[in-house]
Amino acid sequence: MTIASEQSADTIDQLRTPALVVDRDAYRRNKERMDTTRPGLELRPHVKAFKSTALAADLAKDGHTGFCAATPLEIEGLVGAGLTDDLLLANQTLDAARLGRLSDVAQITVAVDSDETIAAAVNGGVRNVLIDVEVGMPRCGCDVSDAGRLGDKARAAGLEVRGVMGYEGHLMMVTDREKQAALVEKSMAKLLAAHEAVGGEIVSGGGTGTFDINTWITELQAGSYLLLDTDYAKLGLPFETAISVVATVISVNAKGWAVVDAGLKAFGLDHGPPTWADGEIMFCADEHTVLVIDENSPTLAVGDRVHLIPGHLDPTVARHQRFWVAEGDQIVDIWPIDLRHW
Amino acid sequence: MTIASEQSADTIDQLRTPALVVDRDAYRRNKERMDTTRPGLELRPHVKAFKSTALAADLAKDGHTGFCAATPLEIEGLVGAGLTDDLLLANQTLDAARLGRLSDVAQITVAVDSDETIAAAVNGGVRNVLIDVEVGMPRCGCDVSDAGRLGDKARAAGLEVRGVMGYEGHLMMVTDREKQAALVEKSMAKLLAAHEAVGGEIVSGGGTGTFDINTWITELQAGSYLLLDTDYAKLGLPFETAISVVATVISVNAKGWAVVDAGLKAFGLDHGPPTWADGEIMFCADEHTVLVIDENSPTLAVGDRVHLIPGHLDPTVARHQRFWVAEGDQIVDIWPIDLRHW
Repeated sequence: MTIASEQSADTIDQLRTPALVVDRDAYRRNKERMDTTRPGLELRPHVKAFKSTALAADLAKDGHTGFCAATPLEIEGLVGAGLTDDLLLANQTLDAARLGRLSDVAQITVAVDSDETIAAAVNGGVRNVLIDVEVGMPRCGCDVSDAGRLGDKARAAGLEVRGVMGYEGHLMMVTDREKQAALVEKSMAKLLAAHEAVGGEIVSGGGTGTFDINTWITELQAGSYLLLDTDYAKLGLPFETAISVVATVISVNAKGWAVVDAGLKAFGLDHGPPTWADGEIMFCADEHTVLVIDENSPTLAVGDRVHLIPGHLDPTVARHQRFWVAEGDQIVDIWPIDLRHW
Repeated sequence: MTIASEQSADTIDQLRTPALVVDRDAYRRNKERMDTTRPGLELRPHVKAFKSTALAADLAKDGHTGFCAATPLEIEGLVGAGLTDDLLLANQTLDAARLGRLSDVAQITVAVDSDETIAAAVNGGVRNVLIDVEVGMPRCGCDVSDAGRLGDKARAAGLEVRGVMGYEGHLMMVTDREKQAALVEKSMAKLLAAHEAVGGEIVSGGGTGTFDINTWITELQAGSYLLLDTDYAKLGLPFETAISVVATVISVNAKGWAVVDAGLKAFGLDHGPPTWADGEIMFCADEHTVLVIDENSPTLAVGDRVHLIPGHLDPTVARHQRFWVAEGDQIVDIWPIDLRHW
């Protein structure tokens, strides 16, 4: 449907801008650090952070063959790519028939938190569910006190109840790690109470921000650690930024600014504007970011290229068609971002 | 490249959510209101706001056959759709060869504001330019005092200099219209001074927020008026919101919230979260928006559908694959959003 033709480039300098670039060495180091803490199936990579079956396939090679997703389309895409071992829609859907029809070729599990979503799973032909429990964040998930009833109801309706999940998303960005650990323990006590009532082998939760602290779960749902963003980078976790948007300087004004051709359509701005390592950002417009040029910044000329680091990885990735994978200045791979939209 | 299959629906209730919906009647009323003030070629619709050749073709039927764009890809798409009469890249590019190669099949004009962008236009085979002038907004555009020199330089290099452009974007959201008019006059005085030095027939500028106030330009660059957003709606202009994202309630919590399946990946959040006409928004996550359910809101049940109005139209549109065009509850047309990416 899009007009953009397939593109190719040997080096970062040849890329049509704006372009989303992965630093492959940094990405690999992030993978290794996570693998030390969460090997194999103790990690369930969350594809919502990167939306690419090529990247998911690379994780599967390391033994992370179970994935979780936020949308039915992400699950459909993983199945299409042959990553069928153990797929969790870590979210509620009423459109469960999209997943039920894949149940003969993939093991698919769907989160449920209400009578209605259980009914949707049954009617849609889904076979496996987790009971999603609210553990302190005001979003999806049933009350702890209702988890056992929902588990029984799901089993009575013929569903395999594999356990529980609960996302302590409200605690990801707590910067005092001791305080964070105490809060996560409280939050997970709710999930364990629900698990007691529901049964099953799985206790799924967590995220990049609690990857080492959350010791109560059987599997971690995390994806941001692979590429990171400036928001997560503030936490001082042992992961590094492996993502940037490359942009070209298209205008320079002697009054003290330069304009590049990557604007808010190339970023998710919900965590603020992107970061330029060499100076300040003045603001973003649709297709422009304005950089402050002063005594603390380098001088830029029209045609120069800069790297901007996104404040929030997930929505930034969702705006691009592909990752350009680089080793130094060389483009060594292209990973299509093929799990976008709905 | 995307996995999403083609979709169809007869009614809004049948749409896979989240879905971007246009109210066709409101859209038509917006068109008519603008046509009264800016008929035919006095309006140069800005495709960055809607990124759809189907919508552009509908405007061309009304006599608006000149368009402006923010990216080379938007121009390429318009040419591909046969809308070749008079296309302006109202932005700087070093990748002018992408447009030069279309110069035999379309009349294409590119904004330039520096020696480098003039050289890029010449080397890329572009034939027509406007001198882009900074009129108070810290973004692209040369200093007024440099406009004449750049015009001469462009002509000496064999380019047709059709005139000047300058965008008073910093004045779009001034709510006091009398104050706004005075500021626009000052800003346009700069553009007219540059025009005096440059010559040519075109003085291009403006936007939805100054559509009636900016009387100094020969053509208005505007696109947001067609569908509007909550940010522009605050100005009290004679346009109405014609766009919404339809979402499905997937979870309801008795503590006082409901969760729908349209999150920040379905919106541009740079002007804040979307608006729900019936109550307050608590927050947006990647694939969720949490609605406050209290004594001032309706009660919602899992499976209900709600309409959310984006705070910023342009980046919201850029996140979706198609507009579902509705008349009441009926889907009457689909406009592919085919001018996305770069």
